[in-house]
Amino acid sequence: MSVAQARTVSTQEKLQRARAASAKLALLSTEEKNALLLAIADAIETREKGILAANLEDIENSTLEGAMRDRLLLTPARIKDMARAVREVAALPDPIGETLAEWTKSNGLHFRKVRVPLGVVGIIYESRPNVTVDTAVLALKTGNAIVLRGGKEASQSSQRLVDIMTAVPGVPEGAIELLDSETRHSVHELIKARGLVDVIIPRGGAGLITYVTENSTVPVIETGAGNCHIFIDESADLDMADRIVLNAKTQRPSVCNAAEKLLVHERVAAEYVPRMVQKLIAAGVEVRGDGKTRSLAAGLPVGDTTEQDWYEEYLRFCMAVAVVADVDEAIAHINKYSTRHSDSIVTSDESNARKFLRQVDSAAVYWNASTRFTDGGEFGMGAEMGISTQKLHCRGPFALAELTSSKYVIVGTGQVR
Amino acid sequence: MSVAQARTVSTQEKLQRARAASAKLALLSTEEKNALLLAIADAIETREKGILAANLEDIENSTLEGAMRDRLLLTPARIKDMARAVREVAALPDPIGETLAEWTKSNGLHFRKVRVPLGVVGIIYESRPNVTVDTAVLALKTGNAIVLRGGKEASQSSQRLVDIMTAVPGVPEGAIELLDSETRHSVHELIKARGLVDVIIPRGGAGLITYVTENSTVPVIETGAGNCHIFIDESADLDMADRIVLNAKTQRPSVCNAAEKLLVHERVAAEYVPRMVQKLIAAGVEVRGDGKTRSLAAGLPVGDTTEQDWYEEYLRFCMAVAVVADVDEAIAHINKYSTRHSDSIVTSDESNARKFLRQVDSAAVYWNASTRFTDGGEFGMGAEMGISTQKLHCRGPFALAELTSSKYVIVGTGQVR
Repeated sequence: MSVAQARTVSTQEKLQRARAASAKLALLSTEEKNALLLAIADAIETREKGILAANLEDIENSTLEGAMRDRLLLTPARIKDMARAVREVAALPDPIGETLAEWTKSNGLHFRKVRVPLGVVGIIYESRPNVTVDTAVLALKTGNAIVLRGGKEASQSSQRLVDIMTAVPGVPEGAIELLDSETRHSVHELIKARGLVDVIIPRGGAGLITYVTENSTVPVIETGAGNCHIFIDESADLDMADRIVLNAKTQRPSVCNAAEKLLVHERVAAEYVPRMVQKLIAAGVEVRGDGKTRSLAAGLPVGDTTEQDWYEEYLRFCMAVAVVADVDEAIAHINKYSTRHSDSIVTSDESNARKFLRQVDSAAVYWNASTRFTDGGEFGMGAEMGISTQKLHCRGPFALAELTSSKYVIVGTGQVR
Repeated sequence: MSVAQARTVSTQEKLQRARAASAKLALLSTEEKNALLLAIADAIETREKGILAANLEDIENSTLEGAMRDRLLLTPARIKDMARAVREVAALPDPIGETLAEWTKSNGLHFRKVRVPLGVVGIIYESRPNVTVDTAVLALKTGNAIVLRGGKEASQSSQRLVDIMTAVPGVPEGAIELLDSETRHSVHELIKARGLVDVIIPRGGAGLITYVTENSTVPVIETGAGNCHIFIDESADLDMADRIVLNAKTQRPSVCNAAEKLLVHERVAAEYVPRMVQKLIAAGVEVRGDGKTRSLAAGLPVGDTTEQDWYEEYLRFCMAVAVVADVDEAIAHINKYSTRHSDSIVTSDESNARKFLRQVDSAAVYWNASTRFTDGGEFGMGAEMGISTQKLHCRGPFALAELTSSKYVIVGTGQVR
């Protein structure tokens, strides 16, 4: 379907088509789905030139700069990566049809709980074109239809990629629908499509996620916001602490699993606070601190903090530091301010570590490791749909298994109550 | 806490108390939780007279009649049943702390996915006082705080039961909070308490469920509405069909797993439609039918149907009957009109049965059994929080395991990316 044609189809029609497609997709065998995925991977490679041309249009139309512009940019190597990622998903086990539980009651009724697709998955995301392909193939692999609403900066790239995927013979009409990215109205229609769409996954900034969670009548999997903490306990190996803090803060500060806050046990604060503040500043990080931190780092350029700092996800080279009395105060601080994404303790004291791991109420809790590992690939899932920061349905990195629901299949011989 | 005191506490304060309690509840051991449950069961039996007195007040204040009044009524036997149900939950396995998956990556990071409580569970329900106790103890068993918003008809009974449960030594303050049932405002505050409450479970009529799903900013588990179908295939054992249809329609028509619609294969319709219509009418059921049904049942009092009939959950002695061409038309009809709760095929043809079980997109699909089995107790769960008709988080009857979330616990030796 050409871009011009696609624009004449209303959001409602696209949602209806996706609903109809979901019934067909649910019945595809694993072999059929994998064949479609491999054909999609081939088509992406074959049509590299067309993808690059569409992407160039996006780049030329865009006012994005720096890291944001880089996210939007496609290159031959990135297109190869995209195709490889599709083949990797094809190679993963298919969760659909899996028997999750099975039993027979004394009345002879046989129960089986079996994994089925969710149906229609809606995803709202920003300007990385590879998300278009990554999420579409995860949906296809799990027998779900997907409705994509990408960022307008990537609209030509996304449309081209969707055209290529939907043109693969055997992909049911409606399996991959792309909504208009020019207006916010398509987001509104998508999140109000209760009955047509089974779940909405917003991937993006805090503003988008709040808008979706507050307005959607379709169930939502909240993703992404990460105000992640690292707590340096009294008994921490301070060299290890250095490596973990610098990695978690500076390796890629714009992502949700980057650390934003450093808590230091007061018994090691006199030694560790000045040492770490210096290293952070040397790495180009703006450091803010509570009163104790500022006095311990006297002479170093440490900014003041407001209450808002402790809630904020900076997503840039900025870190706030606080001195705490002990592991209990660290846990209380984290449970008060964090977004329940990823938090880490650096300690040699197993009992403090166990307490932290148990009591910190976050999707991922770490002992002596960087928060940057909260990622579907790093977890070994082979792919990632997003990172859930809610407790319902799934929590933390999620991929294929979390794009499924279940049904009970009950077989009898005429049983009645 | 007395009723008078309870009324002076605002909904916001109650929600804050529940949030604080959830952190304490999450740390209770299985033994501690079971001891609390057994003490609650004893306290309910010991304080039978007070419960009956409170219930009498409700009955005297109520204008409910018939089945609704009966739902509200407590008797010594029903109080004994309530206490027994609590002891049964105490005897069930505790899902909290269960390791759901565990693996080590090549970089040495050790991952464990462990079951944790959801946190704070909000439930909105109607006039059955036993729901107050049943849901509170399921929450307590799984380390969750619960916020109850019951129907106003049962307000004195619910308050007394909550007073008894919260007075048990060791139950943390805030673990079981009861909201004001006089106004709708407490419902509004509950469903907007994102950040304080982790899930809302509405149990009640379609109006309540729609109101909650459309207005809640807290994730919801939609429950209950059941427009259940029975399809009598060409090869059905018609005597078995009689038993199943009569049981599913008439044994308890006011519940969500009662059948509302009968679909009959056209090849057996000439024999089966008049026969079943007669039996239904003899059982006191109002029968409505499509054109073919009415002509096949000529001479019998069969009402006309409108499009709305096929969507409606009658919840009373009323059933609509349609003649369909084959199993495919039956499946299409069900997937179009059903609430995806429970649907059954009666057939001797395994291939048609498998097709129906696979393609009907409902929480529970039956072959040769009554839809009335969709129930936590009948499934062998030992208890029931509700029956989910959505696909996210849980589907079908749900109890302890579904009142949990998970977290990832990752242990390293200084790993960074």
